[in-house]
Amino acid sequence: MTKQTLQVQGMSCNHCVNSIEGALQEIGAKGKVDLANNTVEISYDENMISFEAVKDAIEEQGYEVV
Amino acid sequence: MTKQTLQVQGMSCNHCVNSIEGALQEIGAKGKVDLANNTVEISYDENMISFEAVKDAIEEQGYEVV
Ligand SMILES: [Cu+2]
Ligand SMILES: [Cu+2]
Repeated sequence: MTKQTLQVQGMSCNHCVNSIEGALQEIGAKGKVDLANNTVEISYDENMISFEAVKDAIEEQGYEVV
Repeated sequence: MTKQTLQVQGMSCNHCVNSIEGALQEIGAKGKVDLANNTVEISYDENMISFEAVKDAIEEQGYEVV
């Protein structure tokens, strides 16, 4: 299991939390958004999912991984 | 047709726009959110819908009509 904390721009409300955490769940990763700190703590199995896929899932929701 | 511009707190992103405009549409009113100014321009038929119903629809989505 890989754990990382990403800096993500553009998250502002609980809808954002749900869309990001939901998109990560859909690809089999786990995400925990911290709105106050503009971070997403991700955990995923690097044998199953690439970091690129995790990043893409977040960016497809309209946010920018810094 | 009644037109009013409401000051609304807590709107921060396009998800907020969609949830408010969608909730107004569901009760037969029309809403146009202006995120930059924290306003919602509402228009509705006062013979069909009360202002209270319009206000409730917005507040049920988690926002405060000032
Ligand atoms: Cu949001
Ligand atoms: Cu929002």
